[in-house]
Amino acid sequence: MSLYFGGDYNPEQWPEDVWHEDVALMRRAGVNLVSVGVFAWSRLEPEEGRYDFGWLDRVLDLLDEGGVKVALATPTASPPPWFSLAYPDALPVRADGTRLLHGSRDTYCGSAPAYREACRRIAGELGRRYAGHPALALWHVHNEYGTACHCDHAAAAFRGWLRKEYGDLDALNDAWVTDFWSQRYSDWEQVFPPRATQYLANPGQLLDFRRFWSDELLAAYTEQRDVLRAATPDVPVTTNFVFGGWVPVDHARWAREVDLVAIDDYPSDAGPAAEEQVAFAGDLARHWAGGDKWLLMESAPNLIYTPGRMHAKEPGRMLRHSLAHVARGSRGAMFFQWRAPRGGAERFHSALVPHAGPDSRTFREAVELGSALRALSEVEDGAIEAPAAIAWDAASWWALQGPGLPWEGIDYLAEARAAHRALWTAGITTDFVSLSRPLAPYRLLVLPAHYLMSDAAADAVAAYVDAGGHLVATYLSGIADERGRVRLGGYPGALRDVLGVRVEEFRPAAHGWDEAVTLNGAAWERPG
Amino acid sequence: MSLYFGGDYNPEQWPEDVWHEDVALMRRAGVNLVSVGVFAWSRLEPEEGRYDFGWLDRVLDLLDEGGVKVALATPTASPPPWFSLAYPDALPVRADGTRLLHGSRDTYCGSAPAYREACRRIAGELGRRYAGHPALALWHVHNEYGTACHCDHAAAAFRGWLRKEYGDLDALNDAWVTDFWSQRYSDWEQVFPPRATQYLANPGQLLDFRRFWSDELLAAYTEQRDVLRAATPDVPVTTNFVFGGWVPVDHARWAREVDLVAIDDYPSDAGPAAEEQVAFAGDLARHWAGGDKWLLMESAPNLIYTPGRMHAKEPGRMLRHSLAHVARGSRGAMFFQWRAPRGGAERFHSALVPHAGPDSRTFREAVELGSALRALSEVEDGAIEAPAAIAWDAASWWALQGPGLPWEGIDYLAEARAAHRALWTAGITTDFVSLSRPLAPYRLLVLPAHYLMSDAAADAVAAYVDAGGHLVATYLSGIADERGRVRLGGYPGALRDVLGVRVEEFRPAAHGWDEAVTLNGAAWERPG
Amino acid sequence: MSLYFGGDYNPEQWPEDVWHEDVALMRRAGVNLVSVGVFAWSRLEPEEGRYDFGWLDRVLDLLDEGGVKVALATPTASPPPWFSLAYPDALPVRADGTRLLHGSRDTYCGSAPAYREACRRIAGELGRRYAGHPALALWHVHNEYGTACHCDHAAAAFRGWLRKEYGDLDALNDAWVTDFWSQRYSDWEQVFPPRATQYLANPGQLLDFRRFWSDELLAAYTEQRDVLRAATPDVPVTTNFVFGGWVPVDHARWAREVDLVAIDDYPSDAGPAAEEQVAFAGDLARHWAGGDKWLLMESAPNLIYTPGRMHAKEPGRMLRHSLAHVARGSRGAMFFQWRAPRGGAERFHSALVPHAGPDSRTFREAVELGSALRALSEVEDGAIEAPAAIAWDAASWWALQGPGLPWEGIDYLAEARAAHRALWTAGITTDFVSLSRPLAPYRLLVLPAHYLMSDAAADAVAAYVDAGGHLVATYLSGIADERGRVRLGGYPGALRDVLGVRVEEFRPAAHGWDEAVTLNGAAWERPG
Repeated sequence: MSLYFGGDYNPEQWPEDVWHEDVALMRRAGVNLVSVGVFAWSRLEPEEGRYDFGWLDRVLDLLDEGGVKVALATPTASPPPWFSLAYPDALPVRADGTRLLHGSRDTYCGSAPAYREACRRIAGELGRRYAGHPALALWHVHNEYGTACHCDHAAAAFRGWLRKEYGDLDALNDAWVTDFWSQRYSDWEQVFPPRATQYLANPGQLLDFRRFWSDELLAAYTEQRDVLRAATPDVPVTTNFVFGGWVPVDHARWAREVDLVAIDDYPSDAGPAAEEQVAFAGDLARHWAGGDKWLLMESAPNLIYTPGRMHAKEPGRMLRHSLAHVARGSRGAMFFQWRAPRGGAERFHSALVPHAGPDSRTFREAVELGSALRALSEVEDGAIEAPAAIAWDAASWWALQGPGLPWEGIDYLAEARAAHRALWTAGITTDFVSLSRPLAPYRLLVLPAHYLMSDAAADAVAAYVDAGGHLVATYLSGIADERGRVRLGGYPGALRDVLGVRVEEFRPAAHGWDEAVTLNGAAWERPG
Repeated sequence: MSLYFGGDYNPEQWPEDVWHEDVALMRRAGVNLVSVGVFAWSRLEPEEGRYDFGWLDRVLDLLDEGGVKVALATPTASPPPWFSLAYPDALPVRADGTRLLHGSRDTYCGSAPAYREACRRIAGELGRRYAGHPALALWHVHNEYGTACHCDHAAAAFRGWLRKEYGDLDALNDAWVTDFWSQRYSDWEQVFPPRATQYLANPGQLLDFRRFWSDELLAAYTEQRDVLRAATPDVPVTTNFVFGGWVPVDHARWAREVDLVAIDDYPSDAGPAAEEQVAFAGDLARHWAGGDKWLLMESAPNLIYTPGRMHAKEPGRMLRHSLAHVARGSRGAMFFQWRAPRGGAERFHSALVPHAGPDSRTFREAVELGSALRALSEVEDGAIEAPAAIAWDAASWWALQGPGLPWEGIDYLAEARAAHRALWTAGITTDFVSLSRPLAPYRLLVLPAHYLMSDAAADAVAAYVDAGGHLVATYLSGIADERGRVRLGGYPGALRDVLGVRVEEFRPAAHGWDEAVTLNGAAWERPG
Repeated sequence: MSLYFGGDYNPEQWPEDVWHEDVALMRRAGVNLVSVGVFAWSRLEPEEGRYDFGWLDRVLDLLDEGGVKVALATPTASPPPWFSLAYPDALPVRADGTRLLHGSRDTYCGSAPAYREACRRIAGELGRRYAGHPALALWHVHNEYGTACHCDHAAAAFRGWLRKEYGDLDALNDAWVTDFWSQRYSDWEQVFPPRATQYLANPGQLLDFRRFWSDELLAAYTEQRDVLRAATPDVPVTTNFVFGGWVPVDHARWAREVDLVAIDDYPSDAGPAAEEQVAFAGDLARHWAGGDKWLLMESAPNLIYTPGRMHAKEPGRMLRHSLAHVARGSRGAMFFQWRAPRGGAERFHSALVPHAGPDSRTFREAVELGSALRALSEVEDGAIEAPAAIAWDAASWWALQGPGLPWEGIDYLAEARAAHRALWTAGITTDFVSLSRPLAPYRLLVLPAHYLMSDAAADAVAAYVDAGGHLVATYLSGIADERGRVRLGGYPGALRDVLGVRVEEFRPAAHGWDEAVTLNGAAWERPG
């Protein structure tokens, strides 16, 4: 299978003569796919309703002539400044009521009718104009969906979502346990997004607000997708998934609505741990893709972002990271971005063509990578067989960021990564799974801090163990139901029987987590 | 004297069949008093003016049948969601202008007429309905008063308080030294709560804003108390005092308005220091009660909250902490809460009946504690005789949280606790005192960071020393008058003569506080 | 030349009988200049349009009788409370939209017409009233200009400034590289101050917002200056410069508009480093003064502020710091403030007359200092000859506080101070310079993190080196043009040829900055 190589290409940042150099350099490096237009709204529609597609026509023609395919983006992740003035009610609002203004990116409320309408319109224009363009290979809707808002549009949409989810208000009151602290609602109009309040917020409300946003943003995506599909039924549509604790998106759910799962991957550790982080991201993408192929849509060519610092990658590391993704099912390696910009907030972000130009180690390594990917395209794919699985549950991650937990050090991602790291270090290929999917194929199932667990999920785990599967569960797994209500009868809740233990209390420790475990059917076996 | 044992009981969180189990378990444990209705407003008045007392009737009857008395709460610490929509002007506003919304607890402005009126109304309804109910033993008004607000209602009330306090504006200008930084007021309308401003706020304004809130919240309390007294002249009324640097409540002043001083006590250190913290809280409560009996209204059965972590108490510690309170004058041991809730922000807070149910160490220890308290009820009280006293001054605590102090490490509470810990460790029973009360009984008087000192207080200290008392004063004691104005002539200000030293300057130290002390009448005696 | 000795004198904080003691003590100490009225607006104009100059008349007469000259301030740094109520639109607004209220100081928007008008009016009143007063020696306009605002007045003024700076919108879009993240403006009305936004702000916008405020505040200053000059053509006018990363003022530019450069100097390290900090401030003031005399307008007599702590100076240090300033060209030593206030946010700030009164080490040292300055007045000035120079560029400092830099530890001031400290420690007299001024006189030129560099500046550096000058440049110097756009061709950008090196990437290091340097014309010489 031919592998993609390329990245975000932003010709709107450059004079036209640079475009010719770009295409020549792309050919030199073997680039065969670029994402175009991701942040080009203010160039494509400089005033409301006035479109300027001429430059984009020329860019796509040039790329086509150069043999480079295009993942054409809808530019909706960054509305132009005119949008703020025309539709101030569509600007996003923080929990404390602060209304944000343009000046960065993603300044919109995903529930605002004016924003949704503007998105459908620009997507429609692009669909109509570039339907049939020979360079068009893929639609790249938006960029890194993940922006929440707390405004009144969001409040109305949240209420609508809750009505659909719960049917009647009593069910909502029950799910959120609103009888605690006198929060019981007597009318739907009393329900709001979590806004600034006096003290700890209701954890059920916080959790559902994340779920709501996942569905609301998904609706925003599918609207654009449907507009594009209508224009170009044969062109696949996707959006690039961004990963992070702040992202209210359930990618496992979203994956069912994209034609190709695409992820952005930015490791957060510059040491050897980055290798495992890359594998983690790739294994997760393969899970979201249901075991099928997916695409690494963005990564940083020659840079790792760690808190407060950017690190140049050591020679060979760009290639190694890229191949690790391909080995886990990526259809190629795409980067942000092709050419380093002269300004803007990410002017120091790495690029395939850095400020120093093509006479640079980065570009030389890009050429090598292009060559390697071309060679790999000839190799037939083997199947990925994983003996071990780690359950992945975005909702548990969200719930464990809520208030009132026994320890502020609780870290869902750290638990999931610790499990993955152990298996990766031992050379064991690992899948991520949902507990609603078949577990039987695996010899080992790990539940890292799987805080929320429905009865069905608990049954699936029990059946897996009954059938001889090996189960490892870490702290707080099973303690709450899918709404976040603590299960009665004591921890580990839904896993009490299958684990055969009982934990009455959490005990202080110098650091970390400590439980007083009583065997209740299980047997203690000394390690070794 | 019969000792109380019980805690917050929230039947509104549970289906009715659980209530019967509750009463049975209470009997098993010897529970004889429960606080009911503390956060039940949204159940008692689900829509404005529509009351639902049926469930509460049944609860009180059930408790009565079980021999359990009730501290019946007014639920005013957490207005229902409908209240926010009906009276948006009664929602609290932060110093930066952010108006808070329901979704937690305590979302009201204590100065808002609509809130005060709603409180009086629900208190009146409760008073009328349960007057004469055989279970009713105590009124528990509100919960942990301590919420400040910076809105326009608060501004108007603050101005009113200041007019009463100062009479004319010149006196206010003088007290706050508004000639510094051109803050002089020429009209009362120019005076506001401390709101977001450019740089350091006026310390006099900050201090008086705390004093105002103490009196304003006290007025809110006494309104409810008076409504209840009118309905049930023979039932004592109280409110549970909460302790913390953020609480703008002068409990020594409040104690004069309650029929029984009641405190909540949550130690903040899980190590052996918790024992001293419990003693500290008990000694302070006894001070507020003027040496009389008081009541530990809330504590956590099997849990200590430290920053970022909840710790299970070691076996026996619940009993030990409870008895330490009784030994210091508590009329029993009450806990938050009876039964752990399934949801809400405090679902992991400890409870007498934990999620694991009665088959748990916590409940077994509760049964033991009930038995111990019953046994102790037979024992006649001895008098508490304390040879040492520590001056406690809430206003100094507040003032030392203000801006522009010589060191940001200044910590009134740490100073007070250090003094108490030293005496407690040495086995010396200690009273807290106000300098306006008789000091003669004590062989030792400690002034920990007693920053504010009126002339009268200084005279009392001098008289105490003249009469042979031993005085220990720690840093900044006496440096300012009761308005927070630095006394002229140099530090230690009001204590200059009685201490016989003079301190011209504070000197750098690796950490902590260091003064260049000159003897000025005092003599230096080498320790040992 | 007669040297000034004195400080801020705030008689409005004291009853009139204290004034007589003040003048007597000033005479004792040899004080010959005091700044009067700096924060006296609410006393001078207690209600809008009603003036009270009587007390100030008496103060100036008293001072004149005592032989003390006056730097008479316009009190515009702290509008009175009435101003907030009369002109709420002139209150400052934070980036997040919070409107600030009086209660501290500097609560105004420097772009608000009502504020500017009120400033001109009070300056005019003072000018007319005290023209010809024998005590009047200097006008001290405002205090420590440096307050920015993000309100709509500021937005309009910012737009006006940008129109003038860029002419047309395309030039602005180009300078800010607005094509990154779709920020391209299609109308001037879309341009705003940096306000709360979703993610990283545009660095070009942030940089120009600082430049705008420097010019806007300068316009506010020159308006007052011109009003005063019209009243008193022979009295010099100045304003005291405050130093800090938050200050959006280009003092090198401002220095051209004052008759005497005046600085406030507060070292931030209490150890021996304070000595170098004092020298740094003095050398910088001399740069701003173009090598001429300048004046230390404020310093703390007996106190060094370090983060979270105030330190008393060791005996002799007040004198040493003062003389270090005089040695670098100060026309004397002025202090904040004469007499310690009883209240207000700075009640613990040091003063020549501390709370302890004149019988204190501080006052005794003040008397010694006065005597020393008097003696020095007899000494003829020598010229200051500096063989080394450090380039100082406020705009680079501002730009290096922006988002998206490769390392969050980048610290322009630390780099500049490290260079200065090295030279100071080696006993080498050092000038600060602008690259637009002659460089030839110096044997050594240091560019500490000179991030922004125009072509002209780069040419000047090259010419300096060609002529045999020695150049030292530290990290990121030359990498961007004067708009903050990264120079193409690779780092060190504008200095690539003159340095003869090429740096393709920044490499991780345990801490600090590390670059992979390739020689490109330069030669490597082993130190020693």
